[in-house]
Amino acid sequence: MFRIPETHPRYKSLMKREKIVAGIEAGITSKQGLIAHGRGEAFDYLIGERTLPAAFRATEAAAALLLTAKKPVISVNGNVAALVPERVIALSELLNAPLEVNIFYWTEARVIKIKEHLEQHGATNVLGAKADARISGIEHARARVDYEGIYSADVVLAPLEDGDRCKALIAMGKKVVTIDLNPVSRTSKYATVSIVDDIERALKNLIFMIKEQKKNGKGKLLEDYDNKGNLRAVINEIAERLKDEELR
Amino acid sequence: MFRIPETHPRYKSLMKREKIVAGIEAGITSKQGLIAHGRGEAFDYLIGERTLPAAFRATEAAAALLLTAKKPVISVNGNVAALVPERVIALSELLNAPLEVNIFYWTEARVIKIKEHLEQHGATNVLGAKADARISGIEHARARVDYEGIYSADVVLAPLEDGDRCKALIAMGKKVVTIDLNPVSRTSKYATVSIVDDIERALKNLIFMIKEQKKNGKGKLLEDYDNKGNLRAVINEIAERLKDEELR
Repeated sequence: MFRIPETHPRYKSLMKREKIVAGIEAGITSKQGLIAHGRGEAFDYLIGERTLPAAFRATEAAAALLLTAKKPVISVNGNVAALVPERVIALSELLNAPLEVNIFYWTEARVIKIKEHLEQHGATNVLGAKADARISGIEHARARVDYEGIYSADVVLAPLEDGDRCKALIAMGKKVVTIDLNPVSRTSKYATVSIVDDIERALKNLIFMIKEQKKNGKGKLLEDYDNKGNLRAVINEIAERLKDEELR
Repeated sequence: MFRIPETHPRYKSLMKREKIVAGIEAGITSKQGLIAHGRGEAFDYLIGERTLPAAFRATEAAAALLLTAKKPVISVNGNVAALVPERVIALSELLNAPLEVNIFYWTEARVIKIKEHLEQHGATNVLGAKADARISGIEHARARVDYEGIYSADVVLAPLEDGDRCKALIAMGKKVVTIDLNPVSRTSKYATVSIVDDIERALKNLIFMIKEQKKNGKGKLLEDYDNKGNLRAVINEIAERLKDEELR
């Protein structure tokens, strides 16, 4: 990795970028994943590169949903594996939920590389290599999942997910938690609980909140969780920030 | 290129992405260019992936500025070369202005590759390989330009430009036209005329408007062009669109 001094004002953002670039070099991240990361950077800039109050609320709702799930599964793509391997593994252990490698630009070689990368970081239960079931309603290549994993899950945590696939999972009757910096993406709109936050910050908060909720008794169920209202709060925050932007 | 089904709701955007990825494979685009493209995608999404009225006005102002220039030069970086080679060449011929390869992550090999790529598309006047002058006020590696090109130009069309370099060109007394999807980027704030639009759409409009202005007598000069007001209009449009965004 390119060495970035910790004093650099954009240290955190640049380090994330380097991790993604290293992911490409390791065959984990796709080039399209690099572009997707750039999209995320733009939205993170617009929300001020910090967790908004609405994102904290969404993360709390997500924690409760995952804790009360019968069969939760954590979907992991190339960017997730490159950016936050330790955090998805910690979450997997905390929830006793398998990780499933699930990528948009599917090749068996890349699935295996991501699986091995997660195992090198300590993961013991990584699905996705079987790809013995299909999500209905989407084109063949992107529909592959494991029967024992996402296919039969009731709640799927699918960070940085594609809109079509999120919609298809919902259509199958699953509850989907997503982490996506774009509050107007199709993924954010379709998901049951959309956390509009950077994935590192969101997983850190999610792990903390799950531990808290475990300690204090499981979280309350979220029949009344208002995802639309939550997204609206994020959108309004971005709009206000934009209007306040100083121009020369 | 990876095959994207034409039925995918984001087909156009994904195809642009494929061009940039092909640019990396051809040694033209940098990995950082991929991330920058992603940031652009996010802002294009926010303006609705179409040319805003403010962008039309900016493009008209840019056409007049380029037509009345004594020595206009068109700066071309890796992303520009990968996305719109035909359009910058058409513009170069229309304005009788040279193209100059000018990249942020400078290596001679990449400059030569971009030059050859443009020549394969029919360009006959591509500068940038001499790099016999320096823009003052910025770090050595990123300051290289051709004396006969950008260094002695009065008006530079610099699409997808870096903020520091845009500022330095302005400090040298040049007028700079930029095309940048981020209305709050430093480039957009520093430029003389900032076209906040996708580069394909902006160049298509620019070519059309230059032809029109040539037919009807040269465009009026723009002593009173209000770049800040134009950017404010774009920002307000984005904020309004966000607030009107339909959520499920």
